Amino acid sequence: MYPFRNDYSYSAHPAVLSAIAACGGAPYIGYGQDGHCEHAARLIRETFHCPNAMVEFCIGGTQVNLLTIAALLRPWEGVICADSGHINGHEAGAVEAAGHKLLPVPATPGGKLTVEAIAPLVDAHRDPHLVKPALVYISQATELGAVYTKAELTALSRFCHENGLKLFVDGARLGCAFAADNCDLSPADLAALADAFTVGGTKNGALFGEALVFSDGSLCPDFFRIKKQRGGVLAKGFLLGAQFEALFTDGLYWNIARHAVKLAGKLQDSLTALGVPLLCSSPTNQIFPVVADELLPALRKLAEFEVWSKPDDTHTAVRFVTCFATTEADVDGLLSALRPLFRKGG
Amino acid sequence: MYPFRNDYSYSAHPAVLSAIAACGGAPYIGYGQDGHCEHAARLIRETFHCPNAMVEFCIGGTQVNLLTIAALLRPWEGVICADSGHINGHEAGAVEAAGHKLLPVPATPGGKLTVEAIAPLVDAHRDPHLVKPALVYISQATELGAVYTKAELTALSRFCHENGLKLFVDGARLGCAFAADNCDLSPADLAALADAFTVGGTKNGALFGEALVFSDGSLCPDFFRIKKQRGGVLAKGFLLGAQFEALFTDGLYWNIARHAVKLAGKLQDSLTALGVPLLCSSPTNQIFPVVADELLPALRKLAEFEVWSKPDDTHTAVRFVTCFATTEADVDGLLSALRPLFRKGG
Amino acid sequence: MYPFRNDYSYSAHPAVLSAIAACGGAPYIGYGQDGHCEHAARLIRETFHCPNAMVEFCIGGTQVNLLTIAALLRPWEGVICADSGHINGHEAGAVEAAGHKLLPVPATPGGKLTVEAIAPLVDAHRDPHLVKPALVYISQATELGAVYTKAELTALSRFCHENGLKLFVDGARLGCAFAADNCDLSPADLAALADAFTVGGTKNGALFGEALVFSDGSLCPDFFRIKKQRGGVLAKGFLLGAQFEALFTDGLYWNIARHAVKLAGKLQDSLTALGVPLLCSSPTNQIFPVVADELLPALRKLAEFEVWSKPDDTHTAVRFVTCFATTEADVDGLLSALRPLFRKGG
Amino acid sequence: MYPFRNDYSYSAHPAVLSAIAACGGAPYIGYGQDGHCEHAARLIRETFHCPNAMVEFCIGGTQVNLLTIAALLRPWEGVICADSGHINGHEAGAVEAAGHKLLPVPATPGGKLTVEAIAPLVDAHRDPHLVKPALVYISQATELGAVYTKAELTALSRFCHENGLKLFVDGARLGCAFAADNCDLSPADLAALADAFTVGGTKNGALFGEALVFSDGSLCPDFFRIKKQRGGVLAKGFLLGAQFEALFTDGLYWNIARHAVKLAGKLQDSLTALGVPLLCSSPTNQIFPVVADELLPALRKLAEFEVWSKPDDTHTAVRFVTCFATTEADVDGLLSALRPLFRKGG
Repeated sequence: MYPFRNDYSYSAHPAVLSAIAACGGAPYIGYGQDGHCEHAARLIRETFHCPNAMVEFCIGGTQVNLLTIAALLRPWEGVICADSGHINGHEAGAVEAAGHKLLPVPATPGGKLTVEAIAPLVDAHRDPHLVKPALVYISQATELGAVYTKAELTALSRFCHENGLKLFVDGARLGCAFAADNCDLSPADLAALADAFTVGGTKNGALFGEALVFSDGSLCPDFFRIKKQRGGVLAKGFLLGAQFEALFTDGLYWNIARHAVKLAGKLQDSLTALGVPLLCSSPTNQIFPVVADELLPALRKLAEFEVWSKPDDTHTAVRFVTCFATTEADVDGLLSALRPLFRKGG
Repeated sequence: MYPFRNDYSYSAHPAVLSAIAACGGAPYIGYGQDGHCEHAARLIRETFHCPNAMVEFCIGGTQVNLLTIAALLRPWEGVICADSGHINGHEAGAVEAAGHKLLPVPATPGGKLTVEAIAPLVDAHRDPHLVKPALVYISQATELGAVYTKAELTALSRFCHENGLKLFVDGARLGCAFAADNCDLSPADLAALADAFTVGGTKNGALFGEALVFSDGSLCPDFFRIKKQRGGVLAKGFLLGAQFEALFTDGLYWNIARHAVKLAGKLQDSLTALGVPLLCSSPTNQIFPVVADELLPALRKLAEFEVWSKPDDTHTAVRFVTCFATTEADVDGLLSALRPLFRKGG
Repeated sequence: MYPFRNDYSYSAHPAVLSAIAACGGAPYIGYGQDGHCEHAARLIRETFHCPNAMVEFCIGGTQVNLLTIAALLRPWEGVICADSGHINGHEAGAVEAAGHKLLPVPATPGGKLTVEAIAPLVDAHRDPHLVKPALVYISQATELGAVYTKAELTALSRFCHENGLKLFVDGARLGCAFAADNCDLSPADLAALADAFTVGGTKNGALFGEALVFSDGSLCPDFFRIKKQRGGVLAKGFLLGAQFEALFTDGLYWNIARHAVKLAGKLQDSLTALGVPLLCSSPTNQIFPVVADELLPALRKLAEFEVWSKPDDTHTAVRFVTCFATTEADVDGLLSALRPLFRKGG
Repeated sequence: MYPFRNDYSYSAHPAVLSAIAACGGAPYIGYGQDGHCEHAARLIRETFHCPNAMVEFCIGGTQVNLLTIAALLRPWEGVICADSGHINGHEAGAVEAAGHKLLPVPATPGGKLTVEAIAPLVDAHRDPHLVKPALVYISQATELGAVYTKAELTALSRFCHENGLKLFVDGARLGCAFAADNCDLSPADLAALADAFTVGGTKNGALFGEALVFSDGSLCPDFFRIKKQRGGVLAKGFLLGAQFEALFTDGLYWNIARHAVKLAGKLQDSLTALGVPLLCSSPTNQIFPVVADELLPALRKLAEFEVWSKPDDTHTAVRFVTCFATTEADVDGLLSALRPLFRKGG
């Protein structure tokens, strides 16, 4: 079985495991007040060229999303997101459980938000009988693997700031977004355009952990209190610091992402060459081939993957994901195994 | 500096670290649906003799407390706890942020709740203009290191169930409670008397992790949904399973606790022999000597510990904590260093 | 200016005002524990043939909707509603502020939910990473004036109960629904098919007040506590009881509704006869003519009404509403004034 | 039975009822956007000499308390209040249901907060593992009828503003506080010292209604949205405006309060003269005589009142309340009936 189910199916990159193993020895101050966290935060501020940023380490993606939104919004404020956004469809009502209405708008086929899609909703919600939109949530890369260009992110950022909205970028797969061929955004651009963004560890080689960056360090000085309140503070917080130290040393974070993107690209290109259509072309580490339903049983015997959607009555879009642990041999093996399948029928 | 600040200052017991290191290799199903979690849950059900229990792995203590309370209560229901209880004084309003009022009652000097303290509050709250008490929260061991006896827990449990209240036992330091000399409770007793309890990993040798046990597995079938919703599901959930597998193999969990309790006992006994009074005598891994305020600066140069309370204007109660990583040499060294101090002045 | 803006623009029906005026004299027990509330509840149980129902009086519509949903749901549960439903588009995120995700589904042109629309969503949400649907919210009449038939409501009710869902009927305009020509539902049918429903006072002749009926009186015995907690208990609760007593004496509630529906019907029929199209034909007290945009300024000089939607680039759907205070002369006067307008251009 | 149970047992002052009766006629804009509300708000701004204040009309006391607190606080912030405060003991967990921890501190015998009581709590909560105190809630008059002097309120206000805390004064019985003999505070003082305060209508002659005043009108520009969201907006909002217009015309609000305070004072003085002790001497419309338990049955046959507390094993403190509807004859009659009782035994 070729393993392409997810980018959180394997333990961690060896360098991350070594960093954790090296934490034995002297006792640490708890709750992230240790030297690893301090150093990792400095590395992230340097990487994203945001010397005044506040960096907070959280454990997981749903957690960091809900904490950030709950920390930045007032009770009557809502969140604009793509109808396909992770917070809308995959987090068990986490944002609503924090009291905030999601305001989903139709996204592009790749899952991106545009000013054109958002503007009418913002206008309509000037009515005080409605929730007040206060934050735009996007993912980089999106749920469908797409990447915002610098121009696109600049347009969104400008619209947000002209309309009193914060821009929050969910970077669960941020490494792969930057590793995409078509990404003309720099880390410094991201920090300049977004009010808050996350740097995902879980899906890019860590055991767990998402770094949250408030570009302006004065935006939410009390963030630690809400992190504690919602159960997001890790007693042995040095484990988060040590992992992000490892990831942001010697470019490991980017190397892991490039590896995953390269293998996903090879798989996508090869499938396309075999005539397999795509739900949408993806430049990152998730790809979405569309296969005839009758091929699914055979596919399920060959590989681990997820069923994504039903573009029509006789076809299914599936998702293959690569990560730090995927090997060239995995990709080549899968392709060899798939070729006879698609030659016959796809 | 002799390290007695906390039981979460060190990484993890070597056997736990080995278990995590052994997780490389084959890909896992995410979110705790893996074989390690399944096996660890079985070991816990066996240990506590509760074959029909539901076991859920959570990441930390504040998280598991708020999740359990939020999962079991209706919006108009409140939680009875000791005024010194962890959820009242140390969790940044986590329970209230989930919408529930805490109803603190005066505890014994050791931090224990009694039926006598609870009963009048339950009576008063039959008035429907007040919150309805629905759950009694206690800690075993308590914040002050005390341990409920079987008779005490039985009385609380009976009162709870006669009055429509659930009994929830926070076992962040459950291992040390069972390791106490005066503990006449068995694991099976705990599962029979409590509706829910936790088995703390973080403070007993794990990197992180608390196992939540619903003694009656049908009590909250949807618990996973609220765990997901509040950001408590770990993508690489196998990390929790692997740690608890290690802890409940070959009695490691109990061995770690006995080690910590033995060293704390030695320290407490020796200090008492030196004439140092105690805030309260503790049979577990936290001890609370009371020292003259003028000795604090010298003490601070010798050891890491926490200032606990001010029993009077000229004395301070401090807390020393032991754990899996504490050594006999730490205790002996500290005692040697302290002796001159207390001979002169304590 | 002919007044058709809303059904809450006027004070109250004279009989309701008299009932309030008659409340002087002896002192009352507070918080709705008085004889008026008791009597009014009995009248409602008799009217809807539900002798075991629990009747609770609330102040307003948003309040009773959020209280009912918060009272019936667990934190991880969500509410299925029409995308055009009042709780989705008009209540400032009230349900989400109570912690629950709304799951809007596409409704019929008249704003009705169907089993066909709901079933796939229920299926998809068996995944425990998503909110668990627990309640279906519908309005009778809908936001667009439509009325569920007995067959339609029966089908929804059966589907709900086969799938563990509660059915909650928002009856802010319940009187007008029963007064509709095409309504084949009896009050007893409603109580038998819905788990909870409201009997709207505000929009049917009261100063304020919505009666909430739990058909099975054991469904939420603690409802008073959550009503108190969310600020929904009126100190002088007898004011609610006295109003509903008046409304359910001598058929006043139904007479008010029939009056409003008759006049709305006359207006709708006459406009149709004038060739004015309708957004949808309505059998109740709200009607939705579609007018050319260039007629709007003239219309605004003649009447008070609300702009509803933009069915196309050059037309606007507007809403006219009748109530207890609307007179035949209002309708005739408006029609006279409109005729020249539509003859020229509409 | 002499009626002294509460100040919300009777309908409304005749002038208030007339104002409501006069609301017939022309249609109103809904939701408080009408001329009555505008005029009433202006009258209140003039009365309290706060020309830039924002005035919002709410329906009841629990509601306005929870709305104000929810509107002003961030999720990790808590509320300092007297342990005897109304929000702590009488509102069914309303503040906690909005997510905020109450931080009760011991009050004076009359229920007042002091800087001395608050300061240590504020210090202790600089620890970010705890809730951040953000607002001090007091009542004027207190639950026990006491009144803050200008010096006391000034000291609290200064401490609050030096420590980043808002000061919120619950004025459910504000009229009676100003009517107290010992009140040296002016309405302008109150507006200058408090960030927010309420002007209670329900307990001072209205059918219902509390006016909320933000002294600085820019403090919470979005208040209407949260009022809507929590079900606090009255569709026929003109009913609130009309009542407060009546109360603040020709000094009616103060006349009602003076009447109630005068009669309560007469009752308290006469009971004292009879040798009946008081739980605490009250200068407002609630008084708290302490009676021997064996007199309670006889007392219950004579009058309606509330049992308040048990100062010792053989005595009970009871509460008698006066209001706009209390007559001199009620007081004299009660006193005549009580005299034989207390001569024998009290």
